Amino acid sequence: MTKLNEIQSYLKEQKLDAAFITTPDNVFYVSGFRSEPHERLLGVMIFQDAEPFVICPLMEIPDVKAAGWTFDTVGHEDTEDAWDVVLNAVKARDLTINEIAIEKSHLTVERLERMEEIFEDVTLSRLDDQLNQMRVIKDEDELIHLRKAAELADYAIEVGCREIAEGKTELEILMAIEFEMKKKGVQKMSFDTMVLSGPKTASPHGVPGDRKIQKGDFILFDLGVVYNGYCSDITRTVAFGEPTDAQREIYETVRLAEETAVDMVRPGVTAMALDKAARDVITNAGYGEYFTHRLGHGLGISVHEYPSITGTNPFVLEEGMVFTIEPGIYKADVTGVRIEDDVVVTKDGVEVLTKFPKELQIIEA
Amino acid sequence: MTKLNEIQSYLKEQKLDAAFITTPDNVFYVSGFRSEPHERLLGVMIFQDAEPFVICPLMEIPDVKAAGWTFDTVGHEDTEDAWDVVLNAVKARDLTINEIAIEKSHLTVERLERMEEIFEDVTLSRLDDQLNQMRVIKDEDELIHLRKAAELADYAIEVGCREIAEGKTELEILMAIEFEMKKKGVQKMSFDTMVLSGPKTASPHGVPGDRKIQKGDFILFDLGVVYNGYCSDITRTVAFGEPTDAQREIYETVRLAEETAVDMVRPGVTAMALDKAARDVITNAGYGEYFTHRLGHGLGISVHEYPSITGTNPFVLEEGMVFTIEPGIYKADVTGVRIEDDVVVTKDGVEVLTKFPKELQIIEA
Repeated sequence: MTKLNEIQSYLKEQKLDAAFITTPDNVFYVSGFRSEPHERLLGVMIFQDAEPFVICPLMEIPDVKAAGWTFDTVGHEDTEDAWDVVLNAVKARDLTINEIAIEKSHLTVERLERMEEIFEDVTLSRLDDQLNQMRVIKDEDELIHLRKAAELADYAIEVGCREIAEGKTELEILMAIEFEMKKKGVQKMSFDTMVLSGPKTASPHGVPGDRKIQKGDFILFDLGVVYNGYCSDITRTVAFGEPTDAQREIYETVRLAEETAVDMVRPGVTAMALDKAARDVITNAGYGEYFTHRLGHGLGISVHEYPSITGTNPFVLEEGMVFTIEPGIYKADVTGVRIEDDVVVTKDGVEVLTKFPKELQIIEA
Repeated sequence: MTKLNEIQSYLKEQKLDAAFITTPDNVFYVSGFRSEPHERLLGVMIFQDAEPFVICPLMEIPDVKAAGWTFDTVGHEDTEDAWDVVLNAVKARDLTINEIAIEKSHLTVERLERMEEIFEDVTLSRLDDQLNQMRVIKDEDELIHLRKAAELADYAIEVGCREIAEGKTELEILMAIEFEMKKKGVQKMSFDTMVLSGPKTASPHGVPGDRKIQKGDFILFDLGVVYNGYCSDITRTVAFGEPTDAQREIYETVRLAEETAVDMVRPGVTAMALDKAARDVITNAGYGEYFTHRLGHGLGISVHEYPSITGTNPFVLEEGMVFTIEPGIYKADVTGVRIEDDVVVTKDGVEVLTKFPKELQIIEA
């Protein structure tokens, strides 16, 4: 069953007249067409039985077709009101529209108000949870893309390690990684590549800069690529020169926390149990206050997607789910360390997509 | 008057109790703090007189302070409801909150519903237009950043031209440009850099790839950088080897259209008049159907911002406004050409920020 058919079945089941999907990632998920429309309107309107349509900027119509969308596509020019185009396309289908499901976590208040205006007396209900339910389980085709994305991320870490040398800047290493990725055909990193060194490793959201690598630094890489529309997201922290005992202790604590959580992954386990298991390792080692973020997040078409792997989320794992596990300790006077893998819940356990070694890599200084 | 004070005055004038700003770009505009919170809540709450606060993920509090925000900052952990934190911070100020202005073009329906839930009987009105009015006029500090961003974009085009050679791929040229930008301290391009060659120039939203440059190609660069939070956006199209007459005719038509519009810029002129002037040049030369997009867009903290320079927008230019002018002709059997400048409306005319030559550059093949 295609994603489109699945939504049509949902509409019938729920007695909804239409679904209007507007997140670029979900438009891609159901139509195969990926675009960043900025402030312009992009969406897919799906009905129980009538022909669905994509609404997009006029100049993108050929791209929608090229992406494999075989149904109707209606375009709007910058000089016209895109909502009139939507209304006309709906009217052409001669349906009664009383209730439309929308993405409440994405649709803006402004667009809500426009929809309420053009579709008189319409009820706008929530489609988000259904889309989350669908996207959270990856099918075999999606897993193929995710495996390849992870393989490329592994290679990127390898390149990064190779590039480390005394006096090189974080940005130089970052660019070498991205250049190599482009050569491998990667058109987009899944987020801004992070290469942090020395004390900067202690900032979970630090920005790579001109800092030069020095002996004794830890270097933290956090990066990912988009492959056929699917993301990877890996973190590795390596040492440049022999680490101190204090650095080593932090590293091994994070590694144990990470591996403890990874080993627990299987259907039936909750997100909160995973977070707790990793956090307990870190807390018991005395570093609890330095692990300041959640354990991980869902991964797929979006680099951060449903579900959130936190200490309070009772979400239960099922086969086919993909997410990150990424504990960290950020202690400015010693070092920051984060280790992150992408994992798939299998029938009876876990498949780890990212395979770069987790034993502390010591780069000769 | 700071941006913050200006919003406080607006609240008093309009008798609004608070403004809640959630677009990352507007959070930066009023607080100096830039962050991409993904699905997490980031916002600035401003009151008529009470102390404003930033709400952000807990781990970003130090970064907010480092960005120069001297007022209250409240953090939320991934495990708590960020809206409770907002409500508590508001309650601590002991104010009566009947009406809050929000960004309707950004705030999601889900967040709207949460706000309606936690602030009982609150009216949520529209702040967008006020923010647009403020941001559309750039002050001298902002112009300094924009000039520098444009200067770097000019240099990027220069690098791109230098890199053109038979057999090189679009991606290789793109990476050389971005590497050089990083060396100049640029941390972020303002959007995905575009390097398109040959027939691919005819796709206004094409994606750079493995196509190898050949003699007779036109090569189109569309790129920009972010400098101190402000964007540039330039397009130049150059020839590799002697162009044909048909290519030259398209180039010179676009150039005349672009320069005609640039020369018209001054206070009092409308957006639609600019669009029409450029479009008339192209239509009169017989290429009207191949100019498929608007003339330009506002430019500043966002690469696409208010106003839109279209054929139907009666928006009147004022001193201090900054936008792009970027006509194009996309004729697949000959070539695509787009030329784009960033311009500032001055007291009695125009300042063109992007300065790379517009005479057709012919790179020796």
